[in-house]
Amino acid sequence: MQATKSTRIKRVGTGDAVYDADCIVIEMPLVIRINGHRHATLMCTPLAIDYLVIGYLLSDGIIDTTADLISLDINDADGIAEVAVAAYDPVAMGQKAVTSGCGKGEIYLEMLQHCRRNTSVVTLSSTTLLQHVNKFNKMSALFLSTGGVHSGAICSPEDVIIFQEDIGRHNAVDKLIGEAASCGIGLSDKILLTSGRLSSEILLKAARQGIPIIVSRSAPTSLAVEIAERLNITLVGFARGNRMNIYAGESRIDG
Amino acid sequence: MQATKSTRIKRVGTGDAVYDADCIVIEMPLVIRINGHRHATLMCTPLAIDYLVIGYLLSDGIIDTTADLISLDINDADGIAEVAVAAYDPVAMGQKAVTSGCGKGEIYLEMLQHCRRNTSVVTLSSTTLLQHVNKFNKMSALFLSTGGVHSGAICSPEDVIIFQEDIGRHNAVDKLIGEAASCGIGLSDKILLTSGRLSSEILLKAARQGIPIIVSRSAPTSLAVEIAERLNITLVGFARGNRMNIYAGESRIDG
Repeated sequence: MQATKSTRIKRVGTGDAVYDADCIVIEMPLVIRINGHRHATLMCTPLAIDYLVIGYLLSDGIIDTTADLISLDINDADGIAEVAVAAYDPVAMGQKAVTSGCGKGEIYLEMLQHCRRNTSVVTLSSTTLLQHVNKFNKMSALFLSTGGVHSGAICSPEDVIIFQEDIGRHNAVDKLIGEAASCGIGLSDKILLTSGRLSSEILLKAARQGIPIIVSRSAPTSLAVEIAERLNITLVGFARGNRMNIYAGESRIDG
Repeated sequence: MQATKSTRIKRVGTGDAVYDADCIVIEMPLVIRINGHRHATLMCTPLAIDYLVIGYLLSDGIIDTTADLISLDINDADGIAEVAVAAYDPVAMGQKAVTSGCGKGEIYLEMLQHCRRNTSVVTLSSTTLLQHVNKFNKMSALFLSTGGVHSGAICSPEDVIIFQEDIGRHNAVDKLIGEAASCGIGLSDKILLTSGRLSSEILLKAARQGIPIIVSRSAPTSLAVEIAERLNITLVGFARGNRMNIYAGESRIDG
């Protein structure tokens, strides 16, 4: 499907304003139906929707591996993804958000319950990591043409191996997770690069898949650093040019 | 409450790596309980939480005005906001996401059902608007110290009148909506400035409050432009320095 469209704009600058064409990124609603029940609506970029849905199901804990997915049928025109899985309880899913009255401590434990301490011994040099980041920064044709998307990549210590983009930074990461799972690429020795800020939700998505190293050109939050420390994840922020800040798990980055 | 904290980092650059202190933005979970039922958990920056909750309730349609809010009690330490409203049905809320199997067209109509076509006749010059944007860009001390937040502002045609920031771009807009409602500031002749991208969700939040002009230094999506055109909202993207692109509703911007 087409990911961009042209729109007519009035361009205001130092001289006279002019009417011009501008390229904008397409945003569409995607309804995810599971075993016939409407589960969620994602607002997304119409690229790699199959990977987005699979990654979303993995991140949300609906499936543990792609073997749990009986079928996935995407109707692009209507924006509906029909998912069949062995076990799904729509009432329990609906109640997830509205039951029990826990506060900060409990929420924090709830978040971490699906994540184990990362034991990966993968390492790479800071020079190689920054080479991957600089290669990654040049890969987003959609960002260059529209300025309206986040991008993400999965790297091995040697190279960038998967690249995805979406209007949402969560969606971009889910697409990477979905593509890796679909292609049988294990993530326990890989690096996640993201253009977006490093918040707790991104950390938990990556932690759940066992990714040991997470890198962004942008800033981390306090909770992201806390989760990285607790789960022994390497967290790198402000990776730009030949600089970066290592917030946690520095032993995986040499030099 | 404190919005930042200091953390120990390893700073990698051209010379030898050094250990240093870095300032990061605090992210906390905030549980919103309505009439004793857990409704949602927001991940947020612990600033202006009362405005965040009120804005969230308005945006989510739980209340129509602050008069519908019987009480709001925020427990900072536990991260719980206890809300009392006259009418709340937790079962209906839980089912919102899991019933009916509609697709793209229906979702679109669902989105727009709470929004009327904007009839505001407010205007301002492009020069004044860019002055507001440039003033706004200098207001975020939290962004300057952490790089980890989005910011937003409400302006009259004459000046910037409310400023808010948060790790989430949706939260920043909800804080503005909550502060305006709490202070009795009508939004039907105001301008929303946001540092974030202009997606359908931001458009719908603003449209619901009757805001006629929405401006960002960043890009809009196709659906944001479509909604702006349909609801007669002025949509401006890439507002930087002395330039901007007007995507819809150009009649409200003179010159």
